[in-house]
Amino acid sequence: MKLATLRDGTRDGALIVVRRDGAVAVSAREIAPTLQAALDDWERAAPELGKLAALLEAGQVAGEPVEARRLMAPLPRAYEWVDGSAYLNHVRLVRKARGAEPPPTLETDPLIYQGGSGDLLGPTEEIVLHDAAWGLDFESEVAVILGDTPLGVTAADAARHVRLLVLVNDITLRNLVPGELAKGFGFFQSKPATALSPLAITPDELGAAWQDARVHLRLRTTYNGQLVGDCDAGPEMHFSFADLIAHIARTRRFTAGTLLGSGTVSNADRARGISCLAERRMIETLEAGAPVTPFMRVGDRVHIEMRDGGGRSLFGAIDQKVVAPTIEKRS
Amino acid sequence: MKLATLRDGTRDGALIVVRRDGAVAVSAREIAPTLQAALDDWERAAPELGKLAALLEAGQVAGEPVEARRLMAPLPRAYEWVDGSAYLNHVRLVRKARGAEPPPTLETDPLIYQGGSGDLLGPTEEIVLHDAAWGLDFESEVAVILGDTPLGVTAADAARHVRLLVLVNDITLRNLVPGELAKGFGFFQSKPATALSPLAITPDELGAAWQDARVHLRLRTTYNGQLVGDCDAGPEMHFSFADLIAHIARTRRFTAGTLLGSGTVSNADRARGISCLAERRMIETLEAGAPVTPFMRVGDRVHIEMRDGGGRSLFGAIDQKVVAPTIEKRS
Repeated sequence: MKLATLRDGTRDGALIVVRRDGAVAVSAREIAPTLQAALDDWERAAPELGKLAALLEAGQVAGEPVEARRLMAPLPRAYEWVDGSAYLNHVRLVRKARGAEPPPTLETDPLIYQGGSGDLLGPTEEIVLHDAAWGLDFESEVAVILGDTPLGVTAADAARHVRLLVLVNDITLRNLVPGELAKGFGFFQSKPATALSPLAITPDELGAAWQDARVHLRLRTTYNGQLVGDCDAGPEMHFSFADLIAHIARTRRFTAGTLLGSGTVSNADRARGISCLAERRMIETLEAGAPVTPFMRVGDRVHIEMRDGGGRSLFGAIDQKVVAPTIEKRS
Repeated sequence: MKLATLRDGTRDGALIVVRRDGAVAVSAREIAPTLQAALDDWERAAPELGKLAALLEAGQVAGEPVEARRLMAPLPRAYEWVDGSAYLNHVRLVRKARGAEPPPTLETDPLIYQGGSGDLLGPTEEIVLHDAAWGLDFESEVAVILGDTPLGVTAADAARHVRLLVLVNDITLRNLVPGELAKGFGFFQSKPATALSPLAITPDELGAAWQDARVHLRLRTTYNGQLVGDCDAGPEMHFSFADLIAHIARTRRFTAGTLLGSGTVSNADRARGISCLAERRMIETLEAGAPVTPFMRVGDRVHIEMRDGGGRSLFGAIDQKVVAPTIEKRS
């Protein structure tokens, strides 16, 4: 099934069940008022949501058209946002770009960081560029939403804690990264609010493409109308979501609704393109001595989507425009 | 006023208003079912909670005795847990302990990290020691709980976003820190679940001790029955909570219920003692060439408390015992 969150003036929005084609939805209010409420009580809620989804698919309940602009992030605020960096091609390129070596444990010990989760942007929410010198970049990713996950879960047992999947734009302020990492405590100011896809979908919606706790489909990134990345999210995900779950759960447990990201999807084959501008700039540097592509500017637009074998959009699209801050004086 | 969360079988517990002496409490159910719900709607809820607190103080509503073991963390799960490291004496000692230099911007650019917030331990919840080799340590801290905080808020305007204060035991697995920081992305496995004090209190409960967005009182840490730290939380907090808020809000906004910590309270005067074992071990190394104090072991107990001028406990006590994991096989 496919779930989404309708903007209704509340902090957490209203849970809706969306038809597989993304066009029509029905309120899930009677089952759970919000996605977090459904995740908190998944054993009860999931079968009921599944039944409602089946009725909607069969045309046995009347749905309402889905308006993309009325959708919030499926979880407008989450209890945790943990992001891996499981595509080693990305790690190698981005570290090269900032003159840093990948850690010697790159292939055995996953890189992860804890991100801010209290404010997650909706799929079409504008990205406000407060300072162009910060070096605004997108990062196209896949993420899972976990159910309650115990401390010490093994990779072999981890995938069953995956409740839903979403796409992510892990917005990054590139020029704030080096100074922040030099302080030794990881990212903070360099990671503003993250955006999520309209739809959160159960793994079965992926069919055979959900395999070995990886999504074996291409993640398409369009930048200012041009397809810049069509990267396979499957084979080059060095650590699967199951590996990442086992890694993060080594010393603590996770509550339902925890969001866990794959890191920027990246392929060694350059023909597949890029899922962030930092990679393109590094490739330009390697090929021509200096980056040509600037970071994002006011008016730029990024569109992130994943399609199934039949060309149908699985998660709906993240489609964000960069805007200047509105000048606002509060009395 | 003083607020707490009663364990009632739900994920978020039940909000109660606690009498100033911590002995008696009354349900706040009619005003807000949980602390998060109160924070989400603070403008309405705070005055009503204040009225109920005044009635309780005056003996005009009947309270029930507070049982420490029935209290959860005031926020059993929070949307963000951001921890500063504002006591530079701690930074200098701990970095020296692991042979690392403090960053050159130590005095001008606050150190902060994003911690896990989905699972916060109650004040008397046991600390499970899964592996003694991880080097279990406590860290006694003060933290604020924020209301909605806009991006770009200035330090001068930041303190008004502080809704409540709590004490924190920022539990750390010292021996996992160096390997993790070497990877460049900050703490993760080295920071298991954090514990909070029983009571979350409004700044006015501190009277004149809440000054310049700092708490000018001593934080007492007792380890296995011995007072090991009686550190002043005020003057040596190099960055005030207002400074820390302005720092974290530079590139994003924060939702109500965000928890922001001071970092380990630490004084240059060694007579004041320590708020974590890492500091004591470093002092031993400086004085005698090697650490003598081991990290925490099964059966150890840490007690963290802050008293006002009259000797009354302001937040109740964090009082945690270290236990071995129960051997559990799930079918």
